[in-house]
Amino acid sequence: MEAPITIDSLEVTDIRFPTSESGDGSDAMHTDPDYSAAYLVLGTSVPGLKGHGLAFTLGRGTEVVVQAVRALEPLIVGRSLAEIRGDWASFWRGLTSEPQLRWIGPEKGAIHLATAAVVNAIWDLTARAEGKPLWKLVADMTPSELVDCVDFRYIEDFLSREEAFEILQKGKSSQPEREKEIRSKGYPAYITSVGWLGYDDAKIKRLCKQGLEEGWDWFKMKVGSNLDDDRRRAAVIRQVIGPERQLMMDANQKWSVPEAMAWMEGLAEFQPLWIEEPTSPDDVLGHAAIARAVSPIGVATGEQCANRVVFKQLLQAEAIAFCQIDSCRLGGLNEVLAVMLMAAKAGVPVCPHAGGVGLCEHVSHLLAIDFLCVSGSMTGRVGEWVDHLHEHFQNPAKVENGRYLLPDAPGYGVAMKSESIEAFSWPNGEVWRGRAQA
Amino acid sequence: MEAPITIDSLEVTDIRFPTSESGDGSDAMHTDPDYSAAYLVLGTSVPGLKGHGLAFTLGRGTEVVVQAVRALEPLIVGRSLAEIRGDWASFWRGLTSEPQLRWIGPEKGAIHLATAAVVNAIWDLTARAEGKPLWKLVADMTPSELVDCVDFRYIEDFLSREEAFEILQKGKSSQPEREKEIRSKGYPAYITSVGWLGYDDAKIKRLCKQGLEEGWDWFKMKVGSNLDDDRRRAAVIRQVIGPERQLMMDANQKWSVPEAMAWMEGLAEFQPLWIEEPTSPDDVLGHAAIARAVSPIGVATGEQCANRVVFKQLLQAEAIAFCQIDSCRLGGLNEVLAVMLMAAKAGVPVCPHAGGVGLCEHVSHLLAIDFLCVSGSMTGRVGEWVDHLHEHFQNPAKVENGRYLLPDAPGYGVAMKSESIEAFSWPNGEVWRGRAQA
Repeated sequence: MEAPITIDSLEVTDIRFPTSESGDGSDAMHTDPDYSAAYLVLGTSVPGLKGHGLAFTLGRGTEVVVQAVRALEPLIVGRSLAEIRGDWASFWRGLTSEPQLRWIGPEKGAIHLATAAVVNAIWDLTARAEGKPLWKLVADMTPSELVDCVDFRYIEDFLSREEAFEILQKGKSSQPEREKEIRSKGYPAYITSVGWLGYDDAKIKRLCKQGLEEGWDWFKMKVGSNLDDDRRRAAVIRQVIGPERQLMMDANQKWSVPEAMAWMEGLAEFQPLWIEEPTSPDDVLGHAAIARAVSPIGVATGEQCANRVVFKQLLQAEAIAFCQIDSCRLGGLNEVLAVMLMAAKAGVPVCPHAGGVGLCEHVSHLLAIDFLCVSGSMTGRVGEWVDHLHEHFQNPAKVENGRYLLPDAPGYGVAMKSESIEAFSWPNGEVWRGRAQA
Repeated sequence: MEAPITIDSLEVTDIRFPTSESGDGSDAMHTDPDYSAAYLVLGTSVPGLKGHGLAFTLGRGTEVVVQAVRALEPLIVGRSLAEIRGDWASFWRGLTSEPQLRWIGPEKGAIHLATAAVVNAIWDLTARAEGKPLWKLVADMTPSELVDCVDFRYIEDFLSREEAFEILQKGKSSQPEREKEIRSKGYPAYITSVGWLGYDDAKIKRLCKQGLEEGWDWFKMKVGSNLDDDRRRAAVIRQVIGPERQLMMDANQKWSVPEAMAWMEGLAEFQPLWIEEPTSPDDVLGHAAIARAVSPIGVATGEQCANRVVFKQLLQAEAIAFCQIDSCRLGGLNEVLAVMLMAAKAGVPVCPHAGGVGLCEHVSHLLAIDFLCVSGSMTGRVGEWVDHLHEHFQNPAKVENGRYLLPDAPGYGVAMKSESIEAFSWPNGEVWRGRAQA
């Protein structure tokens, strides 16, 4: 029998890494990111048992999300884990529909990022309480228990509770074989490091060759600042990786709808698998128009799509061929499950966004959950991998031969090392004390 | 010649009114609002010249928006007003696309509410610097100057800069007649006070009769908690106001898409003009489906629609028959202008959301701007009026005979009385010191 566990504290920290100094992760819209996180730790009535969650941010604005996490604290602290697990969907709705707080969303922006952090911390806590990695905790739940985690408000017109149950039930009996498969083979991943804006031919060639040697089969490049430059880099990458391996392109919301269409005409000959974030993440109809125009290139988006209602429409409108859930943008695992289930119904592969701080750690679990519980397939699916900042986590995500390895440590992956928390705390950690402040 | 004006300070205050104690403004989704605001004052290099803006909130969470306003401070303080006015669209994009801050939106949630407050404060400052009410400042601008205020990013596929210019140019020559008209007649308004959930027949009758005596022609009721109760109240209201006056219904996002369709079948016989917020404010396709199903009842929404990209799609999809801009949810006047222009192109009437704290004060200007500069029409258009909390403003909005009066004081209407700021500051104002804190 499980010991009664009560959440009795919430500590949130503003942690920032000065990544803008090296230009890591910069793109057309986010030119100087300091990869950061509103990082939180839930304390419990059980000595040593904690839950860890984070909202990934880009530096400035992290303090706003920290404040939003604090606003949710009264809804978390004092609650028993059994009570939350007994009716997850209602608890989740209580967070996202808090009648005063919902005005500053609803279900979007800082308050929804905070919701993600809090919800994921509770899942981390749950997995640790059972001594399992999160993916295993979820895989061991029954279809009915999983459906009970999802708030179907505003998505019933696309996915009913019954349909969700059927999707989960369908693959349940063959789950043990898939667990064996992913344990031995891992899950396909892709890298972006070969294709940043402004790399010269020699550097691109070298990085692509290195990628091939390391076993990568999927490569993503940034596009959208200069068409000639994009064509040049695409040609070099294709030349090195050959026609069989996959090349993806990412515009980071740079374009209007007609610009996206025109630009991709100029890049079609390089046979990209997808064009990612061609325009505003809010523009469902725009993505649908672009999808029709650029076919057979698929449209991918999601890292900045606010919630399940936006994903519902992207799927209804056949606007996306690849569904890029973000573990910390959607309201935590519960809403990720909702989107995975809708994508499964639509037959659209889930290819999670990662990178940043801790996103790969979360994604290593989400890939397994989609494969084991929801879609049941790895075909045509791939998770993003960025080799940054993993050293700050107690159980960092791992890739080998271009594939995510199945995590084995208990929890949801983002517990940070205490020395990292201390050093990178903003503005008083030692890393920041020495720097002129923005 | 204008004296050079520099913004040299930004002061933001968390102001909350304990409206939940009387149940004012509660609805199906927002059950206990304490009408509040992140209220800001910009100081300038000119003694006595200030700019005032606010983000309306519901109590808890205001501190998050206050923090978001502070995050924008470095982008505002130190800027000259002439520089901002010289390239308003670029300045606005600089706020909404700040490369680190945009991650916690983009253009939505707490950071976008903060943008609205800051942008509107700059407009207030500009109008005060010229000694004009905001509507007059805008009406005196040329079509070309107004177009230069709009960031067309992500909306060019629906409204080009040239089309926007033509809309503004078309009515410019007849503007003086319209100014005369609105000055003498005011602008139609509607009230919600007759139709709150749970009122008994006698109270509804009394309030409707009182409304008729005061000159109101448009009445809105809340619906969505109990169909029988909605039918009962609708019947009473229709009986008192007769078949000619307008009855509108507001569900405050209570329903799923199929629920909205079914429920409105049960209310169609009372001939509502519109059903407001039938479902999630993010659900463009859902609103479009509802619009097709409930026609000829019009669908109205907007008070929680995040930005111009969402409105663009609502108009593209013919999902709304009434466009309910919110002065403090959209990113200030510049984005309101973008949406007004798109609505004019689509031939959809703009019927602003108001109530809360300061929204009626802003709306009294926006109605005039739409009439004088954009749509050129009052026909079938109406602004919301709620008679709450106006006493805290230095120049409160006014209605007479069911119509908004044209404001005449310089500025954008939301400068608060210093004694109100002091008394209602949270948590240390005298009104709050005496209360147990949430």
